[in-house]
Amino acid sequence: MNENVKVTAEKIRKLEVQGARNVAIAAVQAIQTQIEQTKARTKNAFIEELQEAQTLLFATRETEPLMRNAIRYLVSHAQNNQIYEINALKEAVILSAGQFLVNLEASIELTAEIGAKRIEDGAVVFTHCHSSTVTRLLAKAKAAGKEFAVICTETRPAFQGRITAKELVGLGIETTFIVDSAARVFIEDSDIVIVGADAITAEGNVVNKIGTSGLSVLAHEARKPFYVVSELLKFDPETLTGKCEKIEQRNPAEVWSEPPRGLTVRNPAFDVTPNRNIHGIVCEEGIIAPQSIVQVMRSRYSWVF
Amino acid sequence: MNENVKVTAEKIRKLEVQGARNVAIAAVQAIQTQIEQTKARTKNAFIEELQEAQTLLFATRETEPLMRNAIRYLVSHAQNNQIYEINALKEAVILSAGQFLVNLEASIELTAEIGAKRIEDGAVVFTHCHSSTVTRLLAKAKAAGKEFAVICTETRPAFQGRITAKELVGLGIETTFIVDSAARVFIEDSDIVIVGADAITAEGNVVNKIGTSGLSVLAHEARKPFYVVSELLKFDPETLTGKCEKIEQRNPAEVWSEPPRGLTVRNPAFDVTPNRNIHGIVCEEGIIAPQSIVQVMRSRYSWVF
Amino acid sequence: MNENVKVTAEKIRKLEVQGARNVAIAAVQAIQTQIEQTKARTKNAFIEELQEAQTLLFATRETEPLMRNAIRYLVSHAQNNQIYEINALKEAVILSAGQFLVNLEASIELTAEIGAKRIEDGAVVFTHCHSSTVTRLLAKAKAAGKEFAVICTETRPAFQGRITAKELVGLGIETTFIVDSAARVFIEDSDIVIVGADAITAEGNVVNKIGTSGLSVLAHEARKPFYVVSELLKFDPETLTGKCEKIEQRNPAEVWSEPPRGLTVRNPAFDVTPNRNIHGIVCEEGIIAPQSIVQVMRSRYSWVF
Amino acid sequence: MNENVKVTAEKIRKLEVQGARNVAIAAVQAIQTQIEQTKARTKNAFIEELQEAQTLLFATRETEPLMRNAIRYLVSHAQNNQIYEINALKEAVILSAGQFLVNLEASIELTAEIGAKRIEDGAVVFTHCHSSTVTRLLAKAKAAGKEFAVICTETRPAFQGRITAKELVGLGIETTFIVDSAARVFIEDSDIVIVGADAITAEGNVVNKIGTSGLSVLAHEARKPFYVVSELLKFDPETLTGKCEKIEQRNPAEVWSEPPRGLTVRNPAFDVTPNRNIHGIVCEEGIIAPQSIVQVMRSRYSWVF
Amino acid sequence: MNENVKVTAEKIRKLEVQGARNVAIAAVQAIQTQIEQTKARTKNAFIEELQEAQTLLFATRETEPLMRNAIRYLVSHAQNNQIYEINALKEAVILSAGQFLVNLEASIELTAEIGAKRIEDGAVVFTHCHSSTVTRLLAKAKAAGKEFAVICTETRPAFQGRITAKELVGLGIETTFIVDSAARVFIEDSDIVIVGADAITAEGNVVNKIGTSGLSVLAHEARKPFYVVSELLKFDPETLTGKCEKIEQRNPAEVWSEPPRGLTVRNPAFDVTPNRNIHGIVCEEGIIAPQSIVQVMRSRYSWVF
Amino acid sequence: MNENVKVTAEKIRKLEVQGARNVAIAAVQAIQTQIEQTKARTKNAFIEELQEAQTLLFATRETEPLMRNAIRYLVSHAQNNQIYEINALKEAVILSAGQFLVNLEASIELTAEIGAKRIEDGAVVFTHCHSSTVTRLLAKAKAAGKEFAVICTETRPAFQGRITAKELVGLGIETTFIVDSAARVFIEDSDIVIVGADAITAEGNVVNKIGTSGLSVLAHEARKPFYVVSELLKFDPETLTGKCEKIEQRNPAEVWSEPPRGLTVRNPAFDVTPNRNIHGIVCEEGIIAPQSIVQVMRSRYSWVF
Repeated sequence: MNENVKVTAEKIRKLEVQGARNVAIAAVQAIQTQIEQTKARTKNAFIEELQEAQTLLFATRETEPLMRNAIRYLVSHAQNNQIYEINALKEAVILSAGQFLVNLEASIELTAEIGAKRIEDGAVVFTHCHSSTVTRLLAKAKAAGKEFAVICTETRPAFQGRITAKELVGLGIETTFIVDSAARVFIEDSDIVIVGADAITAEGNVVNKIGTSGLSVLAHEARKPFYVVSELLKFDPETLTGKCEKIEQRNPAEVWSEPPRGLTVRNPAFDVTPNRNIHGIVCEEGIIAPQSIVQVMRSRYSWVF
Repeated sequence: MNENVKVTAEKIRKLEVQGARNVAIAAVQAIQTQIEQTKARTKNAFIEELQEAQTLLFATRETEPLMRNAIRYLVSHAQNNQIYEINALKEAVILSAGQFLVNLEASIELTAEIGAKRIEDGAVVFTHCHSSTVTRLLAKAKAAGKEFAVICTETRPAFQGRITAKELVGLGIETTFIVDSAARVFIEDSDIVIVGADAITAEGNVVNKIGTSGLSVLAHEARKPFYVVSELLKFDPETLTGKCEKIEQRNPAEVWSEPPRGLTVRNPAFDVTPNRNIHGIVCEEGIIAPQSIVQVMRSRYSWVF
Repeated sequence: MNENVKVTAEKIRKLEVQGARNVAIAAVQAIQTQIEQTKARTKNAFIEELQEAQTLLFATRETEPLMRNAIRYLVSHAQNNQIYEINALKEAVILSAGQFLVNLEASIELTAEIGAKRIEDGAVVFTHCHSSTVTRLLAKAKAAGKEFAVICTETRPAFQGRITAKELVGLGIETTFIVDSAARVFIEDSDIVIVGADAITAEGNVVNKIGTSGLSVLAHEARKPFYVVSELLKFDPETLTGKCEKIEQRNPAEVWSEPPRGLTVRNPAFDVTPNRNIHGIVCEEGIIAPQSIVQVMRSRYSWVF
Repeated sequence: MNENVKVTAEKIRKLEVQGARNVAIAAVQAIQTQIEQTKARTKNAFIEELQEAQTLLFATRETEPLMRNAIRYLVSHAQNNQIYEINALKEAVILSAGQFLVNLEASIELTAEIGAKRIEDGAVVFTHCHSSTVTRLLAKAKAAGKEFAVICTETRPAFQGRITAKELVGLGIETTFIVDSAARVFIEDSDIVIVGADAITAEGNVVNKIGTSGLSVLAHEARKPFYVVSELLKFDPETLTGKCEKIEQRNPAEVWSEPPRGLTVRNPAFDVTPNRNIHGIVCEEGIIAPQSIVQVMRSRYSWVF
Repeated sequence: MNENVKVTAEKIRKLEVQGARNVAIAAVQAIQTQIEQTKARTKNAFIEELQEAQTLLFATRETEPLMRNAIRYLVSHAQNNQIYEINALKEAVILSAGQFLVNLEASIELTAEIGAKRIEDGAVVFTHCHSSTVTRLLAKAKAAGKEFAVICTETRPAFQGRITAKELVGLGIETTFIVDSAARVFIEDSDIVIVGADAITAEGNVVNKIGTSGLSVLAHEARKPFYVVSELLKFDPETLTGKCEKIEQRNPAEVWSEPPRGLTVRNPAFDVTPNRNIHGIVCEEGIIAPQSIVQVMRSRYSWVF
Repeated sequence: MNENVKVTAEKIRKLEVQGARNVAIAAVQAIQTQIEQTKARTKNAFIEELQEAQTLLFATRETEPLMRNAIRYLVSHAQNNQIYEINALKEAVILSAGQFLVNLEASIELTAEIGAKRIEDGAVVFTHCHSSTVTRLLAKAKAAGKEFAVICTETRPAFQGRITAKELVGLGIETTFIVDSAARVFIEDSDIVIVGADAITAEGNVVNKIGTSGLSVLAHEARKPFYVVSELLKFDPETLTGKCEKIEQRNPAEVWSEPPRGLTVRNPAFDVTPNRNIHGIVCEEGIIAPQSIVQVMRSRYSWVF
């Protein structure tokens, strides 16, 4: 096993690399390095090495569809192309890895652009946690000359909302910052809710930072449209064949570093927002109904299945 | 103006005394002291002094119905009784103040007892923030030999949920502790939601710690009964004649001590839970429908109006 | 039968007198005149005359609880007082009629005052149809120095919303005028819905101008508080004993003066808003939950039953 | 202990006497007999005997508020009246027992009369299980010349709906009979739902035959008004002080006489309909909001508490 | 620029041509004329002319997806075919324009046929505004021998409901006509709601005459299925890439010709019905779930994107 | 007409063959026999015979999409293949019939496997009626070592729930058995609802045993995910073109064998669960949103349309 892949896998496991996109990029780059350094002399051996890396990287997290889809892409590309000569093969796969990263970046850019059109002048946007795609979307809306304000939650336990707040203030966007449980009070003043995603299931449900599903319920109660912004490759194909998206349970000490003895502290990282509360998923294909996610994937990324 | 009353008012204003009950007790005791030290020689002068104290103490907080009702009680008792001799009057009003505190304590005890019967063996109770009445209720249920578990939220920004968690663990109750925004995930595992109250309006809406109203929406979504535990004197009679219950805006630094320049941090202390989400108010009169609060008050505490 | 009573009854029947309050005043005044002109020489004969007038006036409309309650008051006052001498009796009942009108006016004034406190600075109020009490409430809020805006519907078929719009513009209130079916679009921009009432049932349901109940559904969907402003005497005691509030069917020509032959045009004047959609009834007793209406009536206007 | 009381208690325990009203009547009559046969020579001894009978009869069922209220009435009447001479006392209490039964009958009659007015000509009424008060209500509506139809469920496991169906057909009412789970299909064709009650709680929730609460949910989904018809004495005052209404678990063999070994068969007799689904309780006081039940009880049957 | 195109564009801008279908037909015919009269001598020049016409016609209205899709079809057909000889090209494009209109007509016919099957014998249909496709659908159901009734709203401000009423009465269909705000009262008597559409968004939301979205909320409240009848080409592909469907603001004088000075009259022509309230879209592809609109479009009209 | 086909059709009509799968198998086997015994000498004659069998078998039931789709498959296979020689054709079609049955079996197996993954350890599953696919799903979950419990309803009138209960007990699964109307009480204790299907419409609505749609409403009220398990061929393509799925009305004697004279007993076999209450359809394509059913069918079973 390539040393670099091992190190990267370890970093991902220990949460030293975080965020769906960063994890995917790290994994792809690790595989690029492995390919560069491979001693495999046959296509079979080469593929086997890739599959070993896949197994190792898949095992780092219970759920990381973007990383998994990225690796699936590389492996299937290596398997399915017609090149057998090992150096040409290496080059081809490294190229495809680079292309994957470029396309991913382009998808995010396009997604942000499409979503930015939904921000109307004078609007108040409600968001939760931190999503680089959401920030990019808001930056584009701002750059397009729209005046709007954002309300963002602090997002306990890890306070990712503070990152969002800093970025938005840095962009010159009027921003209000609140504790998570003030959502019902402030959502009334907003016009639209926009959040990111960690994974999308076959039913069109969205796995995202803890608190998102409750927010979707409050948005519905207050008749506010609730949009999820996400590149399509966050779709998890294994949910189609029955897998329940596992929710990562993080370190209780993030919540309370010195709890009284005997207390159980629970710290799930994510929750699941049901499709009926989602007005649309903004992605590189446009704004789609969550219930159509499988069909959209099939027509655009059929190699995922 | 009596010095002790001034000092007490200042402490209340500066939040050095906190919690509806503690504030009410402090105000009553300050008035007791004022009466003991009064130099008034006529009933009129005596009443005037009381009214000055009332004005000062009312001004300390936008909303503290329990304290206000306590003071209303003392002033109306002084005005309406038939004693005119100043020493007898002093004695009578001090006695009534003592009686008020005894009755308040008895009301809380009775409320806890009634509510404790609603905890069924094997139940999982969901609670938010810290309420000494709720803790007492749970302690009574435990003392009655019932086995049950509690899920409690940390309650940002001031982490009052940690007080609750410590008390419950101290009582030997199996307790799970979560961040506020995990409520939708964990409420599914509970059987009943029980929270305290800071104020009750004429419509039967309940003002309580920020996050309570959102929790009531999630409880409704998951078909969990939602009970408010509160002595009746938290009812605010001014809401009957149109007052909007003002929500205290606390120091933003509680939320984020060093926010980026330009960011607006908002820190409302309370929110309002609509009566349609409340299955019952547990009080010293028993378990009542929130919509009947005014009638119940009229028949038991008519002097409040 | 007194001629004046007959004429008044005829005017009420022909809708020449309109509006719950105007109808009640006309009926009371007609009875005052009848009493002044009575030739009755015994209390019995006097009461009989009153009852004849009652029968005649009750028959003019299917539902006019305010008028009916006014007449009930006069008749019961005549029956229950201890005066038997006919001139003294006349004087007493005429006096009580005057007192009734004064009290009614005071109730409306107080109701408007209480409700005006619910208008917060900067608020947008949504209203439907025309209610003089609602206009008075808004005028009081304006006079109290609050800045707010109003959205009002035209209220087909009789365009009573135009009266409201003119009054509000006259008061210097920023007003937006829309067709009835635009309610769902504009309610999103409002903060509170305030409407009047024609009748209140024992369950706490409210009979008001056609369109009110649909508006209450839209207010609920958009999480906007929905308040009914009404003097308590619009309560219809007959609903307590089972009567279904009859809905007046008005002239189809109000809707379409020359419809194609064969078309059925239906023109119900009112609809029924269910209590679950009403956040509170603003009345002379304060802001009450609709579900408590019978108890409130019993404690204040027991002669109604 | 009087033998007749023992026998009656046994019959009630063994379900040989069934139906809230029949149970109450049997208990009152047993106490009448006990009084007639008493050997007590002092008021104290007499009261003690009554209290023993009370204890025995209360123990027969977990929940029978009508019977319990009836016995409470007799005991409180014996305790509180001013008669000490034993024969006069006997006579007085027997008389009050008779009067209780007469009043109960009158209450039911009045309730049926009030409810009958809610049946409009041409209406379709949906009902569940068998309630003699509901049948009486429908009979009165029929007798008043109204044409209407009824849909009734069979009400598994004991098929009480068949009794209802026979009674209605016997009254010449057009009746449709369905299995319980067809309720959602047929409720769409109905205009109003009317059911009886076994007990009413302090919150205004209604305990009635299993299936009633589900029906209330379906009625709400289809916007059909849902009325409960019940004499007020079915209110259980112990719920006010916290008691959870216990649901009787009946013999599993009623559901399946020879189930496969290892299968758990559950047969709860009742369920609890939440007050938010109940449009009104039709009772001898008229049509009241369920949320006002405690106040209505206090003003009419204060001895219950 | 062709004069005829200019004139047509002007007529469309001034609302002299109205109705999505009429506008589309006028635009196509104007382009046909332009092609006939073109002086272009190269394919490039020919295409450029078409694009100028496109720009002009697109600018007439903020949203007219059917017209826009029609023009897109013609332009893309001209661009993509393999003909370069100018006369042959003219002929081909004129032919394709004719074919487009024939297909559109066939789509509407098929849509009406499919929808007509949903009208069951004895049904009551609720509709709003005027849609020629809905009328055709009802005519087909009638022609198929079904007996049914229709309730239609007047549809302020322009009273298009009167057109519908006249057409239906002309077809011998039993029709009831009401003001818009009576919808909640009369929807209870209906079995199905059927409306047309002006535009369909990527999420499956439907833009239609003001009042439609409120009606969909009332239909949901009363558990009535709500169907939209629309040829698929009303889908607006620009919504997929983020465009917010702009709502046309029409002349306030349509609402009130002489409003008081200072009053703001607002007259939006359309509103947006959310997909969760739509049971199905009846179109030439059959009855589809609104959430699948993009996929259906892709498989049938891929040139739209 | 082949005798065997006639006999089979008769058996299906008389409900001697029951269950969507059994009916489909019987029909396919009858057609296999017909082909074996055919005397047709030309492809045309052969096809005509098949179409006669189709007509006869389609007429046996109002709705049996699985059987109809099976027959459609055979007929379209016969029509579209390139074989004209009659013996080769016979062989080919018999083979395809066999293949159809094998594939159907495989689909069910795969469906059960996918669904089994959704059963989490410790879960409580709620089900209604009897579905062999659901039983197979639960058996697979059990075989996978998961511990879980099932609550099943008796399913009046035919008590199919007893078959389910016996099968589950036989599999060693902890099972609780209740009457249908106890669903609201017991659904609270469950984690997931899983039912079968008889037919699926173009909107994604599901036709299943009477009671299923009410159960879906109760599941929604209690926030329980509701899954339908069904092979895709239960989709009815005729609903796409407007057909209303007809609900079979079965023998009233199943409900009550000796009802009183004059009583109407109604016994619909199925009801329709709206797509908004269905979290997913578990099928051989995976877990799909019901709203995507038509697109999924088009891509997998295009011959159905």
